Amino acid sequence: MPEPFVCTHRVLFADTDAAGVVYHAHYLRLFESGRTEFLRDRISPGRVFTESGLVLVVIESWLRYKAAAVYDDLLQIETRLTRLSPVRIRFSYRILREEKELRRLLVKGYTDLAPVNARGKLVRLPHELFEKMAPCAEEVRGGT
Amino acid sequence: MPEPFVCTHRVLFADTDAAGVVYHAHYLRLFESGRTEFLRDRISPGRVFTESGLVLVVIESWLRYKAAAVYDDLLQIETRLTRLSPVRIRFSYRILREEKELRRLLVKGYTDLAPVNARGKLVRLPHELFEKMAPCAEEVRGGT
Amino acid sequence: MPEPFVCTHRVLFADTDAAGVVYHAHYLRLFESGRTEFLRDRISPGRVFTESGLVLVVIESWLRYKAAAVYDDLLQIETRLTRLSPVRIRFSYRILREEKELRRLLVKGYTDLAPVNARGKLVRLPHELFEKMAPCAEEVRGGT
Amino acid sequence: MPEPFVCTHRVLFADTDAAGVVYHAHYLRLFESGRTEFLRDRISPGRVFTESGLVLVVIESWLRYKAAAVYDDLLQIETRLTRLSPVRIRFSYRILREEKELRRLLVKGYTDLAPVNARGKLVRLPHELFEKMAPCAEEVRGGT
Repeated sequence: MPEPFVCTHRVLFADTDAAGVVYHAHYLRLFESGRTEFLRDRISPGRVFTESGLVLVVIESWLRYKAAAVYDDLLQIETRLTRLSPVRIRFSYRILREEKELRRLLVKGYTDLAPVNARGKLVRLPHELFEKMAPCAEEVRGGT
Repeated sequence: MPEPFVCTHRVLFADTDAAGVVYHAHYLRLFESGRTEFLRDRISPGRVFTESGLVLVVIESWLRYKAAAVYDDLLQIETRLTRLSPVRIRFSYRILREEKELRRLLVKGYTDLAPVNARGKLVRLPHELFEKMAPCAEEVRGGT
Repeated sequence: MPEPFVCTHRVLFADTDAAGVVYHAHYLRLFESGRTEFLRDRISPGRVFTESGLVLVVIESWLRYKAAAVYDDLLQIETRLTRLSPVRIRFSYRILREEKELRRLLVKGYTDLAPVNARGKLVRLPHELFEKMAPCAEEVRGGT
Repeated sequence: MPEPFVCTHRVLFADTDAAGVVYHAHYLRLFESGRTEFLRDRISPGRVFTESGLVLVVIESWLRYKAAAVYDDLLQIETRLTRLSPVRIRFSYRILREEKELRRLLVKGYTDLAPVNARGKLVRLPHELFEKMAPCAEEVRGGT
């Protein structure tokens, strides 16, 4: 199984709310950051999707909040490509904070994305892209 | 079954992204707006939770995106209190747009919330609040 | 001098930060809401700019924060069209909160906007639009 | 004159709007990121303000937008401490994008901040902090 891709985020006041913790919607922003860097690192350094006229559109998302992140925390964003098919791609994420002797899990979740063309129509992933992504995926369904 | 509570939101540029549609994370903001107005309208006009020293913390959320909202759309936010227990409250939402002869469903989802006291500890809903909320809930579990 | 246009905003957790107050950047969102509703109410109910292929782009903004807004506050957004020329439009704003016997000024500021065409090029306001906006402006410079 | 402090930000969909560019309010978020990293790098690695029971509150901000940033741009945030007094601190910022043979200036601006104690009252900067910050400031007024 491929290693998760890890990047970091320093919590700003902009991320927090009056309960003193990171506002729950902002983790979807961290998820976007995670999968963008995953794609840049593992698939292609360029704007691979936009250059082929595609956008990856989020069609489903789920988040489970287990502990709160607070201002100034240095968070780790772990991203994995957990399911790949030509019409649906699942990225799974874990948000962690390094503590004394452990890395504490704060949030986990997934987003499902679908390739959409310039006119907003759902399409299949181009064969070349699918082949590039398959080795990075934990589960591959179908083909192109 | 109680009627869903409906409020509206006009889509701003602030809500959209470069794909020309409402950014997927911002629906969690609309959900917050929906349940806040639900509580004000059906449970209490005041700051009922903060006054009793409680915050309702989001512990899980799920969203299914079916069609895109765009700039200047007037959206309807339908909120229902679908599950109530003393330690976990589920609100379910539908985001709709009025079109010629129908109301089109754009997004649906839920958020699960838990009452937390001022020190961040999970607590049970106060009896009085639970009794006030029960008639508005579609499913009630346990009691206080 | 024309009356300012007033609309309201209920402060959500999404608007606040860990200092317990509305995050300073979010007032620019309230300003956008104010000028959008101003244009809808005073100039045209439709998407007048986007329909003529224009976008009003913010080219300068200034904000002075005098007192804090907090969670659940019902804010008033006062918007005025303070300067109009064919290439630059200034909206000025005041954010207020109704208190016992007064309306307290929390934030004031302005945004300068410029009309831009579909290719991102600065253009002059179409004559018809300029004529429609002039009676709503406190100061008019030049013409079309 | 001290060198400006530089950090970077990769533009996400979350940062953009339907005009295809970074939404104008989000530069205030980049400014926050810039001054936070400035303080960590030049003044103290710890949470120096929160530990002394202070928050730096933004009391004024100004932005001039000269060119647009788009999705996936790698932006440079230049931060300078341009004015220091015991009751008011000005940070000035420039947002730039590296292009073929130049670094293009996209946005410039400043934020004025004031030290506030835990009860929300304006206070003077503690002597020790002021002395630490003075060598990093381009202009120093008054003393403690």
